[in-house]
Amino acid sequence: MPPQRPDGPFDWIDAQRARRRRAGLVRELRPRPADSPLLDLACNDYLGLAHHPEVTAAAAEAAARWGAGSTGSRLVTGSTELHAELEAELADFCGFEAALVFSSGYTANLAAVTALTGQGALVVSDAGNHASLIDGCRLSRAEVEVVAHAEPEAVAKVLDGHRGRALAVTDSVFSVDGDAAPLARLAEACRAHGAGLLIDDAHGLGVLGAAGRGAPHAAGLAGAPDVVATATLSKALGSQGGVVLGPAKVVEHLVNTARTFIFDTGLNPAAAGAALAALRLLRREPDRAARARAVADALYRGLTDAGLSAVRPDASVVSVRAPSPEAAVRWAADCRAAGVLVGCFRPPSVPDGISRLRLTARADLTDEQVAEALAVVRRTAPVAENGRP
Amino acid sequence: MPPQRPDGPFDWIDAQRARRRRAGLVRELRPRPADSPLLDLACNDYLGLAHHPEVTAAAAEAAARWGAGSTGSRLVTGSTELHAELEAELADFCGFEAALVFSSGYTANLAAVTALTGQGALVVSDAGNHASLIDGCRLSRAEVEVVAHAEPEAVAKVLDGHRGRALAVTDSVFSVDGDAAPLARLAEACRAHGAGLLIDDAHGLGVLGAAGRGAPHAAGLAGAPDVVATATLSKALGSQGGVVLGPAKVVEHLVNTARTFIFDTGLNPAAAGAALAALRLLRREPDRAARARAVADALYRGLTDAGLSAVRPDASVVSVRAPSPEAAVRWAADCRAAGVLVGCFRPPSVPDGISRLRLTARADLTDEQVAEALAVVRRTAPVAENGRP
Repeated sequence: MPPQRPDGPFDWIDAQRARRRRAGLVRELRPRPADSPLLDLACNDYLGLAHHPEVTAAAAEAAARWGAGSTGSRLVTGSTELHAELEAELADFCGFEAALVFSSGYTANLAAVTALTGQGALVVSDAGNHASLIDGCRLSRAEVEVVAHAEPEAVAKVLDGHRGRALAVTDSVFSVDGDAAPLARLAEACRAHGAGLLIDDAHGLGVLGAAGRGAPHAAGLAGAPDVVATATLSKALGSQGGVVLGPAKVVEHLVNTARTFIFDTGLNPAAAGAALAALRLLRREPDRAARARAVADALYRGLTDAGLSAVRPDASVVSVRAPSPEAAVRWAADCRAAGVLVGCFRPPSVPDGISRLRLTARADLTDEQVAEALAVVRRTAPVAENGRP
Repeated sequence: MPPQRPDGPFDWIDAQRARRRRAGLVRELRPRPADSPLLDLACNDYLGLAHHPEVTAAAAEAAARWGAGSTGSRLVTGSTELHAELEAELADFCGFEAALVFSSGYTANLAAVTALTGQGALVVSDAGNHASLIDGCRLSRAEVEVVAHAEPEAVAKVLDGHRGRALAVTDSVFSVDGDAAPLARLAEACRAHGAGLLIDDAHGLGVLGAAGRGAPHAAGLAGAPDVVATATLSKALGSQGGVVLGPAKVVEHLVNTARTFIFDTGLNPAAAGAALAALRLLRREPDRAARARAVADALYRGLTDAGLSAVRPDASVVSVRAPSPEAAVRWAADCRAAGVLVGCFRPPSVPDGISRLRLTARADLTDEQVAEALAVVRRTAPVAENGRP
């Protein structure tokens, strides 16, 4: 037996912590109160439904009727008729044959990528994809090729050299810069090579497409036999959970093989009920989708008019570059001090190492609130060495 | 460009489906109604709290106050004061310095395994560990050694040959057979080698230890600087979510590095509120833990008295072997037809390929209900070729 090591088994964490501190990359939780006075341009509640009384009442009703938890795996006791109803309405709304609900978008993506690939398959993954898709690739045991961001030609080139099962994987709207993937051209490249296409529509559902039916629907890809989509119930639908949308046989395959479906507890009824209520609200008030996009456009114009380096938004996410992680943190803190909450993305949450503020448009922001937010973000913008913001 | 393949990119699924069908391994969702008349011995609601009026009222109140969703990553807008309160009470109850709540036990396990290991580290994983721990190992980029089930000597042997960072990983109570890990001896082996110990207490929290404080607490390991535990909020606490418990510096490390924490939406408020209410109920009514264990013992005795091959339960899970997957499915169906819902575990959900019925004890089952369940399970038991059950 070797001699006992003098240091504890988790002491290596101390050195990592010190490195983070020196690099200005420390993250801290900042629990928010229920009655925050801040104007929130950081959350993903794109349609303003998380606090809608119909949605929260549906959560309460579902908990009372179905219990606070689903009590088991979806394959044992965790599937209620409420889950089935939600799945049927999600599939119908988004234009797919079938839907399968997960406890999170993260686990939905792990399921979709792993169950649709496997040993011997090829996955072609956009360099800007979300962490959950990347983890899905890592778990898949497939050959993974990461390709340049939003370049269908790069996808086609990788597929050219491959025989056998292949899947291209992309976000529909990329979470960091809010830019959209060229879905139609990606689908074309996939079809020319007999590959499947998996689209993560986390930031598209509820915002893009006719009445918010999502990016695959807008691109004419919903319901296609070679397309599978995923989405979250925690953004535009104001709740929690994830969903995989696709051909019925793909959903049946996931039920039988996806580890994050089989071995996870089903989504809690309150979240399922809230998501269903939000979906029905969106069907009744389809203008919410267009309003979210209009707010994003207004934010983008207001930022670029002030000379800030923003990315033209394709959905609800508006990204503005900051000169450094420290500057981004200070900028976000200054906004907060002035009453406006914005997101601050730094390494390792950004694929290119560039720090940003991230503003999210909400359908329920008034024009006055948009103007107020813009005034604060402009006023607090860091000044670069050349004297320009 | 190669010629378009004649078959669709997901057609390979059809062959897998046919194979499953031939092997009797098809899984189908069976959504349950809200008012099922079945006696439920399949769910993981060990303390009978998922439908407790205080718990479901807390879910409703949290949704009304905090919204139906947490609206973002825990690092952006997804941390509420409710999450912080839940984390403080979980840490206090289980005896650890700090706690961090996730959207599921699955994502909590992925976070703990990956953030505590990494390239160059060694993970020693019990052969009976839950799928989420296994996926954590696969994602960790660490060297993974799977060792014989519940054998501290095997863990020590693997650690003997290793220099550098090491982590042993085990369920506290194994989900398939309901048997407990030899935690004290595992901790001894880890300490002798300077390795950390990660314990998944999904089936122990609320059932084992003084008043249900969990298996690490019962083994005298809670709060140790070299021990980290995970648990679910979806079993004994009747809600949804997962938690990592450990030294404050480990929790801070997870906040900064765990991908399933940073890139996932925070747990929905209804689930957080329900779990907190359930925890407070358990503190007020600590006998629920002992009652769950007593019910499990009664089930075990009743099964073995009838000559059935059951495993002595260390917590709430009672496992009975079936001669084949088909026999297990038929047995479970016969139980259901007679009014009793039991779990049916088949490959690939069982590590040894042996199919089982899985009965879960609930603290709120009456002695009469236990007797009724036993009568049904015995009466419907498959008869083996030698004429004995």
